Amino acid sequence: MNKPSSASQYQGDSGLERLLRDAGSPYDVAGISALLSGVDAAPEGTDPAAWIDLVAASPGVQLRAQLLALRELRRSADGRSSEAPAAPAKSELAGRLAALRQELARRNLSGFIVPRADEHQGEYVPPRAERLAWLTGFTGSAGVAVVLAKRAALFVDGRYTLQAPAQIDGASFEVRHLVEQPPEKWLAAELSRGDRLGFDPWLHTVDGVARLEAALAPIGATAVACADNPLDAVWKAQPPAPLSPIRPQEEHFTGRDSAHKRQAIGAAVAAAGASAAVLTQPDSLAWLLNIRGGDVPHTPLPLGFATIDREGKVELFVDRRKLMPGLERHLGNGVALAAPDGFGAALDRLGKDGAPVLLDPTSAAQWINDRLVSAGARIVRGEDPCALPKACKNPVEITGTKAAHRRDGAAVSRFLGWLAAEAPAGGVDELTAADRLLACRRDDPLFRDLSFDTISGSAANGAIVHYRSSPATNRPLVAGQLYLVDSGAQYLDGTTDITRTVAIGQPSAEMRDRFTRVLKGHIALATARFPRGTTGSQLDALARTALWQAGLDYDHGTGHGVGSYLGVHEGPQRISKVPNRVPLEVGMIVSNEPGYYKTGAYGIRIENLVTVVAVEIPGAERPMLGFETLTLAPIDRALVEPALLGADEIAWLDAYHARVRETLTPLVDAATAAWLAAATRPLAAG
Amino acid sequence: MNKPSSASQYQGDSGLERLLRDAGSPYDVAGISALLSGVDAAPEGTDPAAWIDLVAASPGVQLRAQLLALRELRRSADGRSSEAPAAPAKSELAGRLAALRQELARRNLSGFIVPRADEHQGEYVPPRAERLAWLTGFTGSAGVAVVLAKRAALFVDGRYTLQAPAQIDGASFEVRHLVEQPPEKWLAAELSRGDRLGFDPWLHTVDGVARLEAALAPIGATAVACADNPLDAVWKAQPPAPLSPIRPQEEHFTGRDSAHKRQAIGAAVAAAGASAAVLTQPDSLAWLLNIRGGDVPHTPLPLGFATIDREGKVELFVDRRKLMPGLERHLGNGVALAAPDGFGAALDRLGKDGAPVLLDPTSAAQWINDRLVSAGARIVRGEDPCALPKACKNPVEITGTKAAHRRDGAAVSRFLGWLAAEAPAGGVDELTAADRLLACRRDDPLFRDLSFDTISGSAANGAIVHYRSSPATNRPLVAGQLYLVDSGAQYLDGTTDITRTVAIGQPSAEMRDRFTRVLKGHIALATARFPRGTTGSQLDALARTALWQAGLDYDHGTGHGVGSYLGVHEGPQRISKVPNRVPLEVGMIVSNEPGYYKTGAYGIRIENLVTVVAVEIPGAERPMLGFETLTLAPIDRALVEPALLGADEIAWLDAYHARVRETLTPLVDAATAAWLAAATRPLAAG
Repeated sequence: MNKPSSASQYQGDSGLERLLRDAGSPYDVAGISALLSGVDAAPEGTDPAAWIDLVAASPGVQLRAQLLALRELRRSADGRSSEAPAAPAKSELAGRLAALRQELARRNLSGFIVPRADEHQGEYVPPRAERLAWLTGFTGSAGVAVVLAKRAALFVDGRYTLQAPAQIDGASFEVRHLVEQPPEKWLAAELSRGDRLGFDPWLHTVDGVARLEAALAPIGATAVACADNPLDAVWKAQPPAPLSPIRPQEEHFTGRDSAHKRQAIGAAVAAAGASAAVLTQPDSLAWLLNIRGGDVPHTPLPLGFATIDREGKVELFVDRRKLMPGLERHLGNGVALAAPDGFGAALDRLGKDGAPVLLDPTSAAQWINDRLVSAGARIVRGEDPCALPKACKNPVEITGTKAAHRRDGAAVSRFLGWLAAEAPAGGVDELTAADRLLACRRDDPLFRDLSFDTISGSAANGAIVHYRSSPATNRPLVAGQLYLVDSGAQYLDGTTDITRTVAIGQPSAEMRDRFTRVLKGHIALATARFPRGTTGSQLDALARTALWQAGLDYDHGTGHGVGSYLGVHEGPQRISKVPNRVPLEVGMIVSNEPGYYKTGAYGIRIENLVTVVAVEIPGAERPMLGFETLTLAPIDRALVEPALLGADEIAWLDAYHARVRETLTPLVDAATAAWLAAATRPLAAG
Repeated sequence: MNKPSSASQYQGDSGLERLLRDAGSPYDVAGISALLSGVDAAPEGTDPAAWIDLVAASPGVQLRAQLLALRELRRSADGRSSEAPAAPAKSELAGRLAALRQELARRNLSGFIVPRADEHQGEYVPPRAERLAWLTGFTGSAGVAVVLAKRAALFVDGRYTLQAPAQIDGASFEVRHLVEQPPEKWLAAELSRGDRLGFDPWLHTVDGVARLEAALAPIGATAVACADNPLDAVWKAQPPAPLSPIRPQEEHFTGRDSAHKRQAIGAAVAAAGASAAVLTQPDSLAWLLNIRGGDVPHTPLPLGFATIDREGKVELFVDRRKLMPGLERHLGNGVALAAPDGFGAALDRLGKDGAPVLLDPTSAAQWINDRLVSAGARIVRGEDPCALPKACKNPVEITGTKAAHRRDGAAVSRFLGWLAAEAPAGGVDELTAADRLLACRRDDPLFRDLSFDTISGSAANGAIVHYRSSPATNRPLVAGQLYLVDSGAQYLDGTTDITRTVAIGQPSAEMRDRFTRVLKGHIALATARFPRGTTGSQLDALARTALWQAGLDYDHGTGHGVGSYLGVHEGPQRISKVPNRVPLEVGMIVSNEPGYYKTGAYGIRIENLVTVVAVEIPGAERPMLGFETLTLAPIDRALVEPALLGADEIAWLDAYHARVRETLTPLVDAATAAWLAAATRPLAAG
């Protein structure tokens, strides 16, 4: 940072150095520069200046201004926007692949696997972990590439079979279907006896490596864990690990202090027959320690690792630079802080003398398993002990999420009222609609982020289940078509996720038939009663039978778990065709989102979040559970065909709408209230 | 057999010797004696003299008479009836346990596991495999005992928690709950480092041994595979392996010749990446080779093993004495016959040079796995390749099973008509009712056996899901109570299984409510439409929702697969709460049997068999499947509360009853026809 600054506001390093010293900051200018590299590798969040709090407890006005100026200067020097870098030009891609192949040859590897994954197997990953995009150009949220000496393939699922070929260099990579033509089969055909396929043991789970090894063993090839990632060796401009502030999540949101949680998890570790557990999922850390971070988009995760022993003592491995002032006090004496590079040595201590260590093979990186085993540990395979207690929200969390849903419902209703007024006249398109919806939410003081990229799909785009609108695909909202909007927000007191499908102008009879069948499925699930011990897999068909009777279906799950100001997708429960052995329990939050998609024409989805509650039934012989709907926003009556509904179903919709109206009217402006009144009137009212 | 005979009909060994020689029999008198030991260790079947066909191709009248006389003589000398030996007296049991413990000490074993299992993991086992009953006195169909030096425990499931303590010597064995207090947990508490727990590797599956080893490893104990079973060593009077005739199952019943089946299975073996498969399930042998046997009760199984290579060549390991004359010709050139004691050497040949061998770890004995591995084989774990094609019946098998169901329905209707006339007057009890039902079926020339022990339960006994009536538990059928009868038959052209619940006199409003909810579940499943790829686990809840809405449920699966003149319980499909990944496919037969049980009061179950069919739905976007009901017999209208049914449900019941009436009336006597007419009239007729 010694070259002279060209930005007018930045006064130079020596001035900053002095300001830092005066503020009692532990940083010098070089340290600030390194910090900024990490800050730039994390999402901005709602407060782009939040990182300044990491520099000093009370930075003065001058220091604050100089820090912001320095950041701006660095950015313009790099030619970067504040967002993650755009996808690479295709012309660059061939060179990257060649460089990687050269590196593989140097290491005597026959090939290398590049998954879209980070060390925590999260759905959202930091820029540093976007190796798949860097190498192939493909920016989808799931996929894996395999690079061999002569051939290379990119495997993507049904969501991305159109997008992937458009983004990649077709001369370098062939695109294959992840499910129908899985990498293991391709590898078994392409590799030969003695071949050595490299993988980064930080980026593959224990179960994943076992599957890979099982695929390679019959052909006599071996999977080789690379001590360092060969792609990283050739990715010169790879961003560093993200640095985003870690803050306390207050007990009036979490409902339970961390010490009690740690004690309970320690007891669970003991009950599993282990002396300690390794926690690799950042949302487990966030829940356990009542903290939130900002290292990845849309989910307030603090990336890091932890260990916990039978007494509930935690060792937390995160970059100290991420800790907001006062956070160590918040964590308390039961949590020892350690640098990330001390993690391996801690695993060695944990595993010595054959100690039993609990590890979740479905999410823990193979590296951790290997390190524990070579330290002598006996691995106790089991689910992350935080997963289930985190999923079962306590009453305080439920109260918070209900408050968040009321405010979110008011915001969505303001948006839907605006849409009803504006869209028929033309002039609204997918991008302006999504922007408007964000604007309606952003006002909320507890709003922190969207919980995922809004799916805003008009007509045929609505039939693309994981559609993300862009200037290239943007469509206007047109009369006679459907508009599907699936969106959610992160509030300090809860996470939301809602889908509404709206008729622009007059819908067709077919659209009304399909929508009503989807609604019947939604109601069947919303009103289900089921004994304790029932899983979401058992209930999934209830949401589909009305479609099945007409020979229709949808190709996605019916419900996913949702966190409390955490992941909008969380386990272990789910409502899906895929078998799942986790019973639904009181306090779990799941989505209820059946749909119907007519390719090239329109998409329909009706999504509310619901929470599992105990229900009292007179004469019941077993403890029974049911769902309480959390999400509050009108369901488009214009799309409902009452002749297809039974009396009970009509009663449900009318009661839901009455509740929506009564709850939201006090929270919205007069125009929205008027629209709400009409949008929620009983079905019999026509 | 040289001691003089006291039976008047038996003329002595020398006369028999001559008759055997004259008939060209391969047997001498000593051989006949050994044969008879095996015959006595098999169920009698419908023709108790069938075994004589095994002695000579055309035995004369004299030889036949002498053979029967000899068998009778041996039986009276043994003091045995023609049925399996009764449960041992409690006084004998302590001695047996002591003898086993002495044997275990001699072998330096800390303990031994005695499962209720044979080498094929079948539901029905031959007398030779009734080790658990011999040792403990417990005669239930499932359970496991563990014998340690000082303690011994018997683990049984919820069905047997009353029966087991009544049968065993409580001073020797403690009874524990198989599911809630599993043996693995008990062993982990009772055993110590260095302990050696013996098991018979013929009687445990590969997966079962893996679970056992996983339970013992943490405590430092080991599971020791015993080369020969220590219990067998002390069971002096253990019966030999059963010898029952193996006959061809003709192609007009199987619909497909064995050569084509073998070719298809060979191709499946190749597709699994194996050079051969080991078949350990006798119903797979029966299906593959179009043969049926009689080695166990109620299922026409030929006990034996086979191997099949990629070309479909089969080596069949069965005792040659079981082959009916002409069977080798029926098997043809593609099937090599070998003695059971050649099986191990055949596995050695199969596994040499690291050959990949397909083995089903959920059903194959550990012994087979170990032998293959020590021969150098690479085990390819996969489902028995016959299981799925056997489950998907071809049109000829479906035609056969429909014919069997028509005749069975006529027999059941004759029984139900008789019951309606006789029971209200008193004088019918559970045992007489079951006998009458058997008599109604036995007339059929294709009848071969019941497909399981009839469950005939009056009032509170009906609430015991796997109840088997005995003189000690027998109850009269009494007005105001319900009677539940679950029964089935083995016909040459199909296997049946039906449950009907009948009101004796006037049922209570509660009984009608419960019955109607069960019926709603039955109808929901019977009328389900679902896309290809759907599993039974996904559909299970449809049969339960009407009960769940009232806080009720039942603790068993909703449907099991059924064979074609084979097992009344077969896989791989099932309709159950338990996750199952096998999609329902056209031609599969499953039961549809929701129920409700009020302990101490009554039981309700409505069971029909159904077959999976393709359904055409106008406008359908996907290939859809549904069920066609096979079982034909009235459902008791007196138990139906029409107010609880929707119009569609009433229409289903009326249409079903019309079909029952039209199909069965031509097959029954006038009195039954008159009863049928009344029992099947439309619900609106009151």
